[in-house]
Amino acid sequence: MENSLTPKDNAVEREPRGARRKRATRAKLIESAFRLMAGKGMEGVAINDITEAADVGFGSFYNHFESKEALYEAVVESVFEDFADWIDRLVASTTDNAQSISIAVRHTMLRVKREPMWGQFLIREGLSLRSLERGLGQRLFRDIRTGIEAGRFASGDPFMSFVSVGGTILVSIAVTLAEVDNPQITREDLPERTAAAVLRILGIDPKEADAIARHALSW
Amino acid sequence: MENSLTPKDNAVEREPRGARRKRATRAKLIESAFRLMAGKGMEGVAINDITEAADVGFGSFYNHFESKEALYEAVVESVFEDFADWIDRLVASTTDNAQSISIAVRHTMLRVKREPMWGQFLIREGLSLRSLERGLGQRLFRDIRTGIEAGRFASGDPFMSFVSVGGTILVSIAVTLAEVDNPQITREDLPERTAAAVLRILGIDPKEADAIARHALSW
Repeated sequence: MENSLTPKDNAVEREPRGARRKRATRAKLIESAFRLMAGKGMEGVAINDITEAADVGFGSFYNHFESKEALYEAVVESVFEDFADWIDRLVASTTDNAQSISIAVRHTMLRVKREPMWGQFLIREGLSLRSLERGLGQRLFRDIRTGIEAGRFASGDPFMSFVSVGGTILVSIAVTLAEVDNPQITREDLPERTAAAVLRILGIDPKEADAIARHALSW
Repeated sequence: MENSLTPKDNAVEREPRGARRKRATRAKLIESAFRLMAGKGMEGVAINDITEAADVGFGSFYNHFESKEALYEAVVESVFEDFADWIDRLVASTTDNAQSISIAVRHTMLRVKREPMWGQFLIREGLSLRSLERGLGQRLFRDIRTGIEAGRFASGDPFMSFVSVGGTILVSIAVTLAEVDNPQITREDLPERTAAAVLRILGIDPKEADAIARHALSW
């Protein structure tokens, strides 16, 4: 019901200490929502769960967000948009579409290893297909189409290429996160093998795909 | 569905009315667990939720199942094993590995369309990787390896081929279920396009993959 454009909020922002406190509370709400939604999905989490986990009064939730959906948007923004922006800057100087996508896939997989909960959230978000409207999913689809138009990727069905590439990445994340101990699940070099599998789906010759996927990362 | 080999169950079966009632209660528990777990996952559902949804006393749960995990096994058994057996019989006379996998994928996608909740459960189960131990996931991996060994499929990394094929199917299911209305999401002929994408991943030439995926289904 309240957003930061209301007179009340403007008044608070003229008072630095209040503004700092407000930012801190907002960050706590985003962090708690992220943890809870990674486990149960947006639909499975109530505002009350979030305010309790953040140790914030239920009533003050609406000083920060209009609705649970608005908080969810803020979570996705802070969780994925920043990462996607970072990846975009990272590959800005790379002129080869295959290299760019390989670097993006490997960094995504490496981050999942470092931050399992981020991976958990990514799987949920990815499968909801809300991701097609923005963030990682939307950029992935854009990069696939750009590569097809440039003649670097081969695809007779760009949407299915996106489905296969997205599915490969999401199941690889699930493999990284899975606690199942099965000799058939081989996790070595999964970031590189995932990048190679993605490139093969996009029509890159298997040998070249392997070579690109194993290039040294320059970060 | 009944484990009729235990002495206890045999005793019950000598008493028709009690046995019938017991089977009916067991079926109600499985059905309720299926509905709840499709939405929230096994971890998100308590025994109490299941007995309440099934309108069965909490205490009598343990007359039917040792634990929630045992009930979960029974759900997976009734939900996927029967379907997998049916698919196996359906393709028993098919000698081409590519045809078999195409038929299995299309029937899976068609069932998701008819029974969205079944698809929801399949996505959850598939991503948990518990599926690698049995049922559809395990059979899919088996069929991929068989095709590779027969030289019909090409793959330098059988596990990653399984990841890409499984991911393609799971995301296609998510596309079928998604309520997101986005012009980029093209749902026409999704069962056939998914089968074709799977065959391409397995190294089948795109034109042949399309032809196989659009063969008339003989059921």
